[in-house]
Amino acid sequence: MISKSEIKLITSLRQKKYRLQYGLFVAEGVKIIQDFLDSGVFPHSIYTVETLRSVFPEAEVVSENELKKISNLKVPSGCLAVFKIPTLQEPPVKGLVVALDGVRDPGNLGTIIRLCDWFGVLFLFCSEDTVDCYNPKVVQASMGSIARVKVQYGVLQTYLKSAPLPAFAAVMEGSSVYTEVMPAEAILVLGNEANGISEAIKNFCKNTISIPAFGKSKTAESLNVAMATAILLSEFRRATEM
Amino acid sequence: MISKSEIKLITSLRQKKYRLQYGLFVAEGVKIIQDFLDSGVFPHSIYTVETLRSVFPEAEVVSENELKKISNLKVPSGCLAVFKIPTLQEPPVKGLVVALDGVRDPGNLGTIIRLCDWFGVLFLFCSEDTVDCYNPKVVQASMGSIARVKVQYGVLQTYLKSAPLPAFAAVMEGSSVYTEVMPAEAILVLGNEANGISEAIKNFCKNTISIPAFGKSKTAESLNVAMATAILLSEFRRATEM
Repeated sequence: MISKSEIKLITSLRQKKYRLQYGLFVAEGVKIIQDFLDSGVFPHSIYTVETLRSVFPEAEVVSENELKKISNLKVPSGCLAVFKIPTLQEPPVKGLVVALDGVRDPGNLGTIIRLCDWFGVLFLFCSEDTVDCYNPKVVQASMGSIARVKVQYGVLQTYLKSAPLPAFAAVMEGSSVYTEVMPAEAILVLGNEANGISEAIKNFCKNTISIPAFGKSKTAESLNVAMATAILLSEFRRATEM
Repeated sequence: MISKSEIKLITSLRQKKYRLQYGLFVAEGVKIIQDFLDSGVFPHSIYTVETLRSVFPEAEVVSENELKKISNLKVPSGCLAVFKIPTLQEPPVKGLVVALDGVRDPGNLGTIIRLCDWFGVLFLFCSEDTVDCYNPKVVQASMGSIARVKVQYGVLQTYLKSAPLPAFAAVMEGSSVYTEVMPAEAILVLGNEANGISEAIKNFCKNTISIPAFGKSKTAESLNVAMATAILLSEFRRATEM
């Protein structure tokens, strides 16, 4: 039986201001919850229906109806956990890093986190106007990858200024990703869905990079930011893999 | 003023069986409609609100309320056109072709069509259980690219058997895309979101290909089919661009 105050707390976490205030966020589904637990993220509370009791023995058993009240999903997936937002580490000074300037769509951020996980990018830096990574839609779209990728929010200029890694801005008019020599350690910067990377941020990137459209087909407007991330991360990694 | 029979016809096109029966489909928004007209797709009828009259002088002017009745969008974008489904051409015997085996999500198919357009893939072959490309969600997600990419549905086995191009199956356990030598002319085959490429289809593909996960991060489950398409098309094209 979930108390009214628990319901109030959990549903309040749909809003960023309460996630920040309480330092908590919500994840749903066996795999995603398991991924957070495996990554050492501290659980505040776990709720599960009777049939999934054996998966999370420490969880509080609730009815389907109770789960519906706290779930963010149209069809709740049988279990929901509240986790503590991990405390931030210092941004890394080596490796491949992705930095986002104002990405707004939760689905795009979730996909980008999943791509970071696939390509072994351990650290994602987000400008303060990028959508919150603990937004329930981002958590679910990242398919558990968010448990393994460290995401930090802050002033992107300050980070780029202080980081000892070369920054590559993904822009429409950059050097071709097929001919540019890309280092294994770098910061790949991607911008907002509609406006790309802001001018202020571009000034902090010594290198520009772009994905050429092929042949006659210069008519496609642009690649979606998640598509561009997929292709560019693959290109940064191919040199190391070969 | 739209007649009741027009409203009935247009709303019926939300269903595949009526699109097939009438040979018509719906597109919305200035850019997408313009892209279809530019590509020579034949308009059956165009409806626009007064403010967009100058963009489509041949269109029937309707009220916002009338447009709401026929639109598939939550927020109608001021104009809607009904187009004739283009008649199919023979599948090409050269170039780079993408073939899909049972892709079900309209957003994924729309994104894949957009990627084909970007990378100059002029032809997309879809198995009969792939989502219909004239589904309104696919048309809108493709952002007008569907006007430039020819999409044909049919029996994938038959196509692969008869096509004089080498087929590359995108699978989890294939040869690394970073070391494999890929020809400029080929068929890239991608599978269903949950089950990948069916065994029957795999047997028709002489080559397999995959995108290696990087470093320790072998934990990400898999790449979404649209992400995989982005990376693989980029890899097929890089050889030609360099």
